[in-house]
Amino acid sequence: MTIPTLNPEAAERVLTGSVAELSTRFAGIFSGETVDRYVHESYQSLYRTAAIKHYLPVMAGRFAAERLTALAQATGKIDKTVPEVLFICVHNAGRSQMAAAMLHRAARGRVHVRSAGSLPASEINPSVTDAMDEVGVDLSGEFPKPLTDDVVRAADVVITMGCGDACPIYPGKRYLDWDLLDPDGQPLHVVQDIRDQIESKVKHFLDELLASA
Amino acid sequence: MTIPTLNPEAAERVLTGSVAELSTRFAGIFSGETVDRYVHESYQSLYRTAAIKHYLPVMAGRFAAERLTALAQATGKIDKTVPEVLFICVHNAGRSQMAAAMLHRAARGRVHVRSAGSLPASEINPSVTDAMDEVGVDLSGEFPKPLTDDVVRAADVVITMGCGDACPIYPGKRYLDWDLLDPDGQPLHVVQDIRDQIESKVKHFLDELLASA
Repeated sequence: MTIPTLNPEAAERVLTGSVAELSTRFAGIFSGETVDRYVHESYQSLYRTAAIKHYLPVMAGRFAAERLTALAQATGKIDKTVPEVLFICVHNAGRSQMAAAMLHRAARGRVHVRSAGSLPASEINPSVTDAMDEVGVDLSGEFPKPLTDDVVRAADVVITMGCGDACPIYPGKRYLDWDLLDPDGQPLHVVQDIRDQIESKVKHFLDELLASA
Repeated sequence: MTIPTLNPEAAERVLTGSVAELSTRFAGIFSGETVDRYVHESYQSLYRTAAIKHYLPVMAGRFAAERLTALAQATGKIDKTVPEVLFICVHNAGRSQMAAAMLHRAARGRVHVRSAGSLPASEINPSVTDAMDEVGVDLSGEFPKPLTDDVVRAADVVITMGCGDACPIYPGKRYLDWDLLDPDGQPLHVVQDIRDQIESKVKHFLDELLASA
């Protein structure tokens, strides 16, 4: 397969388009200048670690949109309508991606989910994508994202998985740590086991979260 | 040696102090809200990779100050009085730190220098600190910083060292690539060689930069 290339001018056109769209979406909440910064910083931070750069301008727009929403929530500029849950692992390429996708599917709109990595990998672990495909979850549009301050601040519950002390603790949030094997470098059957453990943990967590809400 | 710990409340007090100080320094240029974002995002991004967290709130304030200055320069809100040079390597723990310190010293105010890493290390390489001490350059106050969009945009010259394609190319800047061995894991005598090569390259570069300015 040939990986398509993207020249700087084409990338900038996509980013400029995202800035325009998000400036409209966040009108009255954030200035165009803030939106521009978020889009370009999001692009730069993904660019540092991503293996395939071609889709990065599009991903940067999506990442910036999530971060701006989180920032607006954290600063009280928009209301949270449902609990916000953030999953953090080291690479945002396996555990936190699986957990976020599982919780998103199980919650059916009753919870909003984000995920991030303390040291994001260059791409989602292919065995993880395969294992999730088997249970009908498509991760092909996802990508490893660095942990940013905005998404931590917007979270009601932060669930860490093996990222040690890479995330500062903020008061007023609930922290959980899930002990799960890192799927990186593991054969598919081990990744399937991790996936099933995550699914079980997610179900219990969701029941308990909804009961307490 | 006991590594001092810093509790979240103490960290937040330091960060709040930086926000107040930088809001005054950048009054009329950036809103307090933008300054607050920069300080906290800078803290979060350093926290993800730094080994010793104790001094991070102070470092985050310095990093945010540099980034805000770069952003103000890049957007024409403050003038650049001297050429801006940015060194980028992978870890911002060896080559780019040495080059930045050497150029800063040699330029004596005629050039402003920044450095960054595509995948910042947890601390400056101790052999690098030792080798620089030998030539009278103190790196003890420095720390590895992630590459951000603002510092790239503010640069007139970007000098990369082994970071591959981790940095998007922007039009209107001069790009140079210096071929230097990575000091990571090398014995001191090799690090000394690298240091001397960098010193020589920096001198030639400075002569040429000042001649063309």
